[in-house]
Amino acid sequence: MENRGDVYDHNCPSRVIANHATGQWGSLVLAKLLGGTLRFGELRREVAGVSEKMLAQTLQALERDGLVHREVHPVIPPRVDYSLTPLGTQAAKRISDLFGWIEENVPNFRAAQDDYDARRQNV
Amino acid sequence: MENRGDVYDHNCPSRVIANHATGQWGSLVLAKLLGGTLRFGELRREVAGVSEKMLAQTLQALERDGLVHREVHPVIPPRVDYSLTPLGTQAAKRISDLFGWIEENVPNFRAAQDDYDARRQNV
Repeated sequence: MENRGDVYDHNCPSRVIANHATGQWGSLVLAKLLGGTLRFGELRREVAGVSEKMLAQTLQALERDGLVHREVHPVIPPRVDYSLTPLGTQAAKRISDLFGWIEENVPNFRAAQDDYDARRQNV
Repeated sequence: MENRGDVYDHNCPSRVIANHATGQWGSLVLAKLLGGTLRFGELRREVAGVSEKMLAQTLQALERDGLVHREVHPVIPPRVDYSLTPLGTQAAKRISDLFGWIEENVPNFRAAQDDYDARRQNV
C-alpha cells in the first residue's frame, strides 16, 4: 500500500513513531492520559520513576507526532494541560489493552521466570 | 484484584515485563515471530538495526518472561530456533495490532510533525 510504513525498516518514520509510542515512558504517558487531561506535575506523580527531563522530552516527542495536545493557560502561575488527540486516543487504547493483559498475567510471568531460573541453576 | 500487577508502580514485576514487551527490540522481535519460527541469524536480518549483543539480550529476557521459546537442535553446526509461546502469541498479537495501526497512519504522523515544526519556526 502506498504511503504505508514498515516498522522493520529502520529508516522508516513509522519506526520512530513506534519507538515513541512503545518506549518505556511514552507508552505509560499515553495510557495514563486515556483517563483524562493531566498537568505536567500530575503526570510526573502518576508515572512513577520518570524524571522531569525525561517526561518533558517524552511529551514533546508525543506532541510533535500528533499524539498529545499541549494547552498553555495564560494564568499566573502558568498552567499547562496535556491530553490525547484523536490519533493519540487510538494509540493509547491499544497500549492500554496490552498493559491490561500484562497486569492480568503477572502470575504466569513469575512462574515462567522461576522455572527459567531453576533450570539455569541445574545446568 | 489479587495478584494483578500495576505497570504504574515501578516496583511491580509487570512494569519490567512491559519494558521487555514494549521495548524497542522486544516489541519488534515478538511481532516478527508471529510469522513463525526463526533462527537467530534470520531474526537479526529481519529486525534491521539490532546488534548481535542486543538481540541476544532481548531474546534471553523474553525467554525468561515465558514469551519466547528457545529450541537448541543438537546438530553440527548447532541450530537454535526461536518461536512464540502461547503467552508470547497473545502479547505479539496486541503489539502487531499497534504496529499495523502505526504503519497505516504514517501520513497523519508526518502531517502532525510538519505542522509542529512550522509552528516552531514562526515563534
